[in-house]
Amino acid sequence: MIVHTDYLFFNTKKRQEFVRITDEVQRIVEASGVKEGTVLVSAMHITAGVYVNDWENGLIHDFQEWLEKLAPSGLDYAHHQTGEDNADAHLKRTIMGHQVTLPITKGALDLGPWEQVFYAEFDGQRRKRVVVKVMGIA
Amino acid sequence: MIVHTDYLFFNTKKRQEFVRITDEVQRIVEASGVKEGTVLVSAMHITAGVYVNDWENGLIHDFQEWLEKLAPSGLDYAHHQTGEDNADAHLKRTIMGHQVTLPITKGALDLGPWEQVFYAEFDGQRRKRVVVKVMGIA
Amino acid sequence: MIVHTDYLFFNTKKRQEFVRITDEVQRIVEASGVKEGTVLVSAMHITAGVYVNDWENGLIHDFQEWLEKLAPSGLDYAHHQTGEDNADAHLKRTIMGHQVTLPITKGALDLGPWEQVFYAEFDGQRRKRVVVKVMGIA
Repeated sequence: MIVHTDYLFFNTKKRQEFVRITDEVQRIVEASGVKEGTVLVSAMHITAGVYVNDWENGLIHDFQEWLEKLAPSGLDYAHHQTGEDNADAHLKRTIMGHQVTLPITKGALDLGPWEQVFYAEFDGQRRKRVVVKVMGIA
Repeated sequence: MIVHTDYLFFNTKKRQEFVRITDEVQRIVEASGVKEGTVLVSAMHITAGVYVNDWENGLIHDFQEWLEKLAPSGLDYAHHQTGEDNADAHLKRTIMGHQVTLPITKGALDLGPWEQVFYAEFDGQRRKRVVVKVMGIA
Repeated sequence: MIVHTDYLFFNTKKRQEFVRITDEVQRIVEASGVKEGTVLVSAMHITAGVYVNDWENGLIHDFQEWLEKLAPSGLDYAHHQTGEDNADAHLKRTIMGHQVTLPITKGALDLGPWEQVFYAEFDGQRRKRVVVKVMGIA
């Protein structure tokens, strides 16, 4: 059994930004030598998420508008009494999910035709990290 | 270590339909020979989800009404400028989650008394797929 | 390959209560002997969740207020025709997520600086259970 660990780093220009990471995850899977197994892709910061959905700019816009409606910024959150101003980022990442586990079959990510993996940043403009943990057999 | 892969196929009659798949997943676990491990059950299409909750028609109705309120169909989504009309399905599946990982103990799904696994279709009436990846030891 | 199973039990004093369980999960990881792998932490009851976020009381308050807004209690849910009164608990746990998979690196949970694991109870005051499944290599 192989267990292989790597990390992806992000420092987005905008506070909120969705970044496609399918190819980066696939490269880590290839480097691991795992042919059959799974890979966990998980945000290590609590104001960011990882999700699987469409690589289509309109839909990404829809997601961001929708999240702003469900978990608005600028409200008088109790968390802000600590000096923070990002409570909405914690809520938004909860809606999107903070991690995915992807199947690996015959050495490649076993994804449907439209499945793409995204890093969802909700409080960026600083260095942040995603852990990628590959497990399986050669 | 055993890694066993299978797929479930769906072609729902209605656009939106929740289908219980606990028994199908259990059968794949049995076929794998894994006695201790986990099974990943993950929608391969981005307008469908997989979730664990109650097998009770009233609650399924409540879920569907609630999702329609949180992520309404028929709005003027940016995604629809591509010719699609299913942006709400992408959002709804995000709320429900697109995958679960179930523990396997003594050769069976290690579920609580009311836990049932569901496939949640939000843009059906066509052939769609779920990947089932079993990992563990005999 | 090691597969190690344990359970955490809860009986919260309040109906809704979020309980930090990072240390309990870490102790199970240590007992398993797994140095590289993953641990699945999953609620076995369908009115409770498991999530990763901040250990800050203001934010926990914000989460609970937000969930009450998105999935209110006291509505006339169809599920309540069965005699239940907890439909909102099923919805709230869906937003928070019912399970997480945590990476294990060098024998410890591989978490970011602010990541803490929580059990989110939405219909407590009775005995409930979380399964903890550790998989990996020594």
